[in-house]
Amino acid sequence: MLTKTNVDRHVAEIEELLRNVGTILKKRGRDILSNFDITPPQLDALLVLRDHGELTMGELCQKMYLACSTATDLIDRMERNGLIERARDTNDRRVIRLKVLPKGSSVIEEVMEARRTYLATILAEIDLADKERLIQSVEQLNYLMSREV
Amino acid sequence: MLTKTNVDRHVAEIEELLRNVGTILKKRGRDILSNFDITPPQLDALLVLRDHGELTMGELCQKMYLACSTATDLIDRMERNGLIERARDTNDRRVIRLKVLPKGSSVIEEVMEARRTYLATILAEIDLADKERLIQSVEQLNYLMSREV
Repeated sequence: MLTKTNVDRHVAEIEELLRNVGTILKKRGRDILSNFDITPPQLDALLVLRDHGELTMGELCQKMYLACSTATDLIDRMERNGLIERARDTNDRRVIRLKVLPKGSSVIEEVMEARRTYLATILAEIDLADKERLIQSVEQLNYLMSREV
Repeated sequence: MLTKTNVDRHVAEIEELLRNVGTILKKRGRDILSNFDITPPQLDALLVLRDHGELTMGELCQKMYLACSTATDLIDRMERNGLIERARDTNDRRVIRLKVLPKGSSVIEEVMEARRTYLATILAEIDLADKERLIQSVEQLNYLMSREV
């Protein structure tokens, strides 16, 4: 029977499981980045710029949910490290856009490959049907969460 | 057929889905904490202390995967805010243990309740079978990941 208590139990269980998986992934993600010359927020910024194309500073802060003062320091460091550059917009020369440089793209690719290798090890023990069930479940959750943002 | 490409596609898909869900949960988690007088690392520390009982500083840094210098600042602030206290071990008075104070416990409870309320809204649109499928899938993933740590 679908009582209030059952609903609460499911929600509490899902909350805890997602929090645990999140903690482990964060830790593993950090271990992976320690092999590259890049910090977690720098990787986040690279991924946002890769997925949304060239952004202004204001657009990047918004998408990263970061204060622009924090993001400015981050971007300065990334520019010095040759991961991105600030370039003038071709249509409106007054606008500065952030652009991923080839070094940035190859760092993203190497980090993502390392993350996939880690997950492949974890998932090697799950059969195909369970992998597909996992994909369907998390896809559904992702869809509902993204819509809500 | 279970070709290498299929395996890679599943892994890449799961990696991306988990990363997206993680990003949204992190953002929502931060929104929730903005209503409380506590930062994300402070919540992490409170949860670790709640789940593992009274820990020494060294044990806490290890469980949080933090440099002890960073954790010391964090703990100092939390002690000033009345969330935790440093107390001498009852068996060995030379050892200092960190202990969650009642204010810390009630902050944890309120934050967890707010997180469950958010997730309940998201999950309200999923039927019971899908919720159970999600729990089974993430439970399996969590089990395999925890074992590996």
